[in-house]
Amino acid sequence: MPAEDGYRLWLRYVPVHGDWLSRYRAAATELVGAPGVARAELQRGLTGLLGAPLREATDVTQDGAVLFGTPSSSPLVKSLPLDLQRLGAQGYLIRTVTIRGHRAIVIAANTDVGVLYGAFGFLRLLQTREPVDHLDIASTPDISRRVLDHWDNLNGTIERGYAGDSLWKWESLPEHLSPRYTDYARACASIGINGTVLNNVNATSFILTPSYLEKVAALAGVMRPYGIRVYLSVPFSAPVALGHLESADPLDPRVQAWWAAKVAEIYREIPDFGGFLMKANSEGQPGPEDYGRTQAQGADLLAHALAPHGGIIMWRAFVYTTGAHSEDRAKQAYDTFKPLDGKFADNVLVQVKNGPIDFQPREPFHPLFGAMPHTNLMLELQISKEYLGQRTSMVYLGPLFEEALRDDTWAKGAGSTVARVTDGSLYGGHLTAIAGVANTGSNRNWCGSIFNQANWYAFGRLAWNPGLSARAIADEWVKMTFSSDPRFVAPVVKMMMGSREAAVDYMTPLGLASQMAAGTHFGPGPWVAPARGMPPDWSSTYYSRADAQGIGFDRTATGSNAVAEYSAHVAAQFGNPATCPDDLLLWFHHLSWDYRMPSGQTLWDSLVLHYDRGVESVKEARETWDTLSPYVDNQRYRLTADFLAIQEKDAEWWRNASIAYFQSISHRPLPAGVAAPPDTLAHYEAFCIPFVEGSPSPHAECPTADVAVPR
Amino acid sequence: MPAEDGYRLWLRYVPVHGDWLSRYRAAATELVGAPGVARAELQRGLTGLLGAPLREATDVTQDGAVLFGTPSSSPLVKSLPLDLQRLGAQGYLIRTVTIRGHRAIVIAANTDVGVLYGAFGFLRLLQTREPVDHLDIASTPDISRRVLDHWDNLNGTIERGYAGDSLWKWESLPEHLSPRYTDYARACASIGINGTVLNNVNATSFILTPSYLEKVAALAGVMRPYGIRVYLSVPFSAPVALGHLESADPLDPRVQAWWAAKVAEIYREIPDFGGFLMKANSEGQPGPEDYGRTQAQGADLLAHALAPHGGIIMWRAFVYTTGAHSEDRAKQAYDTFKPLDGKFADNVLVQVKNGPIDFQPREPFHPLFGAMPHTNLMLELQISKEYLGQRTSMVYLGPLFEEALRDDTWAKGAGSTVARVTDGSLYGGHLTAIAGVANTGSNRNWCGSIFNQANWYAFGRLAWNPGLSARAIADEWVKMTFSSDPRFVAPVVKMMMGSREAAVDYMTPLGLASQMAAGTHFGPGPWVAPARGMPPDWSSTYYSRADAQGIGFDRTATGSNAVAEYSAHVAAQFGNPATCPDDLLLWFHHLSWDYRMPSGQTLWDSLVLHYDRGVESVKEARETWDTLSPYVDNQRYRLTADFLAIQEKDAEWWRNASIAYFQSISHRPLPAGVAAPPDTLAHYEAFCIPFVEGSPSPHAECPTADVAVPR
Repeated sequence: MPAEDGYRLWLRYVPVHGDWLSRYRAAATELVGAPGVARAELQRGLTGLLGAPLREATDVTQDGAVLFGTPSSSPLVKSLPLDLQRLGAQGYLIRTVTIRGHRAIVIAANTDVGVLYGAFGFLRLLQTREPVDHLDIASTPDISRRVLDHWDNLNGTIERGYAGDSLWKWESLPEHLSPRYTDYARACASIGINGTVLNNVNATSFILTPSYLEKVAALAGVMRPYGIRVYLSVPFSAPVALGHLESADPLDPRVQAWWAAKVAEIYREIPDFGGFLMKANSEGQPGPEDYGRTQAQGADLLAHALAPHGGIIMWRAFVYTTGAHSEDRAKQAYDTFKPLDGKFADNVLVQVKNGPIDFQPREPFHPLFGAMPHTNLMLELQISKEYLGQRTSMVYLGPLFEEALRDDTWAKGAGSTVARVTDGSLYGGHLTAIAGVANTGSNRNWCGSIFNQANWYAFGRLAWNPGLSARAIADEWVKMTFSSDPRFVAPVVKMMMGSREAAVDYMTPLGLASQMAAGTHFGPGPWVAPARGMPPDWSSTYYSRADAQGIGFDRTATGSNAVAEYSAHVAAQFGNPATCPDDLLLWFHHLSWDYRMPSGQTLWDSLVLHYDRGVESVKEARETWDTLSPYVDNQRYRLTADFLAIQEKDAEWWRNASIAYFQSISHRPLPAGVAAPPDTLAHYEAFCIPFVEGSPSPHAECPTADVAVPR
Repeated sequence: MPAEDGYRLWLRYVPVHGDWLSRYRAAATELVGAPGVARAELQRGLTGLLGAPLREATDVTQDGAVLFGTPSSSPLVKSLPLDLQRLGAQGYLIRTVTIRGHRAIVIAANTDVGVLYGAFGFLRLLQTREPVDHLDIASTPDISRRVLDHWDNLNGTIERGYAGDSLWKWESLPEHLSPRYTDYARACASIGINGTVLNNVNATSFILTPSYLEKVAALAGVMRPYGIRVYLSVPFSAPVALGHLESADPLDPRVQAWWAAKVAEIYREIPDFGGFLMKANSEGQPGPEDYGRTQAQGADLLAHALAPHGGIIMWRAFVYTTGAHSEDRAKQAYDTFKPLDGKFADNVLVQVKNGPIDFQPREPFHPLFGAMPHTNLMLELQISKEYLGQRTSMVYLGPLFEEALRDDTWAKGAGSTVARVTDGSLYGGHLTAIAGVANTGSNRNWCGSIFNQANWYAFGRLAWNPGLSARAIADEWVKMTFSSDPRFVAPVVKMMMGSREAAVDYMTPLGLASQMAAGTHFGPGPWVAPARGMPPDWSSTYYSRADAQGIGFDRTATGSNAVAEYSAHVAAQFGNPATCPDDLLLWFHHLSWDYRMPSGQTLWDSLVLHYDRGVESVKEARETWDTLSPYVDNQRYRLTADFLAIQEKDAEWWRNASIAYFQSISHRPLPAGVAAPPDTLAHYEAFCIPFVEGSPSPHAECPTADVAVPR
């Protein structure tokens, strides 16, 4: 097999063989529709899959016509009884029809971008070897704005990015439009993503200067045909920095006028500009609280400037003034936002991370979901694996995303899932959105590894349809990215589906969280204690609360009572160790090392066995992959095999360091048959990876010690 | 033409057509020699150029044999009367011979890497359409160590890098060896580069920890077959940071023992390790002066640790304690090092930048060249265009490198060129070296633009043979990189050859220097005055010394007298404005705005006309390129065309801002027919590009002003 570098993602369009080829060739013989990105993609895809370009016709002339278009772009589509109304502005249908006696497949929608989504949907059928003989598919997105948040800095670096530097080459915009911008837009559109926030939430005002806006407009021009709107992160202090005002007070008319003028200026350049993303009063960022105003007053300032142009503001709920809420950081967003329910303008979306802390391997759902019935809430997921092994670990996030969406808030009884809060069906909201923190960069393979691509893919697919299963998505992705051979697909999907739980097991089992090395968030750091000048909630011990008696963060009424932020049903379940799910146990409860788990094991034994199981799972994945070289080209095989070797080493490091640390506190023996960590705790504490990609300033936090590589 | 992304550099090996194809096919019909990188490259190259793989034989069996090897790897080579002795360890010969009645070409050397250099040399003949019928070429490098200095940080960023993040993916080493590492080694070997310093001269001790050394060893393993030795930048303070010693004093026996042990540890991992590169007592870096020791004592500390293993230390002369030598920073290196001549160990090379300041568009040669007859001096050039337009500007540095090498120090009379100091022929030195600060990064095209690749190429070719002309190198590069069609080659070479002088003209004509924006070094900043807390020599006005009377830095006896650091002949020439070359005039002299130039123009008029000429030259280059699309694939054509548009805008910005600034001081009218800058000086001063790639922290230095793009 020729070497592949991963650049083509899941849009490889490699030749179909055997029976499928003849079936598909019969099904697709000519393309009938107007020129544009949909036709270009269909031609590109079918040429690749079927081995030869299709004739491009203006009318159906033979069996196997692929007719595509909207009622306005295609009189033929208009003439068919397709009932397009129900598809809305973004949906599509794919249906087998007969036109003038010829068998044809029609891909129809109300808008050009709907047709493009349909084109990608049709190609996916072929890529995944689905029959296309009797098609009747209608697909519309449940969530209307499906957005990637790029934490890309204007100097080209990416905060928490593990796939090279920024895709956006600011220094050569607007003049040069890299072909890669178009391929980015194609990849996004292929999975239904229709928005992109170009710059880091830790934003600078420079993005709002005319020269940067001209660059942004150029990118927006590339994205437009693919149905992708451009958004920008902006700092709350922009009126001071750029406008030379003395204040950014949201109630100051000069501030309001400045934003109104700036927004108008943006829309002159970019008529379909999406709006703003704001991180305010969090981790040192300015915000309305600097002026004694509420988050709602801050959000509405921007909302009013954007509303006349149809723009929206995504206002992050991830507020935490470092150190200020040190009793339980998990409560701060809820405490700040819950009282503001109903006070946000209609074009505000409050953007809530899936969990109350920060993108951990596992968190309970965020208590704001279900708690703000009168506010548009959107869900923020992290596709970039900041806390999940970064570039090299294989961790398929489909199960995490699925879990986050399916978690039931019980706000209006059973079935009040986070997905239904997000898609607006629970409270009847009309403005709906979901965001994923992007994992893309300039690396040739876009995401740092081949398997990281699956997380971008899964985010897009779930954003379109939160009801999809992570397993079905993995199945699709594997077929499109590698091979549809079932001898390859089945073991790889199994490996992917187990990978997130493996990471939870070897990093933070049983509801633990934030045990990573400080700063870099890579590798174990359970011993990281509050340091001088650092807020306590930037330490690991703040979260584990391990002591001679036991381990876990008491968030019940005897502790921080964060559990009370959930609806009564959920609070009751989580609040009782007997009913709290094992995998959230230590998130909500401080329990004795000798606490009896439902399995009969002690908590200590169970904890240790989870670490072991995590390592075991990575070993198994590695063994599985080792058998699969016949199905993959050598370059992607090697990259993955080498990364799995790294992950196995890292998993063992996590397991050994964590057991060594917690055993130094529990003073309990290891369960029978479990191997002791090969080195001392001091050894693990001294070891440190001083630099990782995408990490602001890890150096100072790393002891400069001349120690050996951990085993 | 199919789109090309530039990844293949000058090693594209695209099919030869027409007469040349039949001639070359007859000349190369079979490959005779041992397996290895030379055979692999010959096979790869000839397969691409000639359209089909060559048979690989163990003996000459037909006309057109290409025989390659050393006397040890090939009995056939050994049997031929080739007089290989004179080739030394690195040279090669390529000769047409008859073997058993068959016409053959032999590529022979004393070492495998010599054969590899010969293989690349042979392929270059075909790539540049040279006849290969009667070959008798012998080539040996004039300088024995030809090194790339990578200013790559361990977190993946590159200081002053404009081509994406680091090539070295530390997080996945040693496990994963990216295919790109091998392609890097191939590219280096193809132009004779035989050393690579992997990390930034602003170094951290972490590079010397066992886990990083294991990664370095893995890279060294990739480089080894290509004849490339790995070197490391190290901080002088490593014994304190890593060894927990209280001091790094070079005379402290514990410090000496620590380095000896560390070096021994490195050589256990990497037996052919090259040695260290040190930046000491410069820009905040620690060094021997912290302990009251000389630079020579510092260098010898490392030299003695490395000597038993055959390692060398490259000790940078770029010492300047910021603010300490504010009378004339150009003098500090000379003042520090000249008294130490003869005091350095044999395995020390003092690494001297081409000019006394810092990689400006034009500087006089560094006065240390010729002034240290008893010390090994090596030349440091900058391939990365820190001060020359960075990623986007087309500035071919061949002429700058050529000028730097050919500058005559007159240290031992006429012909005492910098090249002859560097290659050891002037003073009979045996340890010779040259370094180039690399312009490579992870961008698909390696160097940020296609034309930036030419600077990497030119550095390598001149390092091998400083006697080559920049024009001949450009000619080769254009043919290999684009097309050998003379209708393309001639105009492109002309454009390249004029490009550096154009940049000098629109940035810093007539011997001006350091007029760039502070921090980023991109765009004009002639108004940058000494700021509080900033050393005066980090300002532009420190260098221009423009006042109501005139402009220029008086470095004659009436000023800093830096000119006296040159040999008498040179000092006399530079010290008199009448004999000082125009292009260095303001480097050495402060002259009246009304000073009469040899042309009859006043200095002011001449200055203004230089700015104009620079812009004109870029416009002409752009017009030239616009006519050349028939000869280039669209992707590389478009990238270059767009970058030239950016450069034209930047050149005009430089011209307008510089004229506006200097006119505000000279109060002289513009020469007849010269257009006034379209905006006010205040406008240019307010405009700023806040972020550039590869720039440490430019933000703070940029006024946050909401101004329009400059015209």
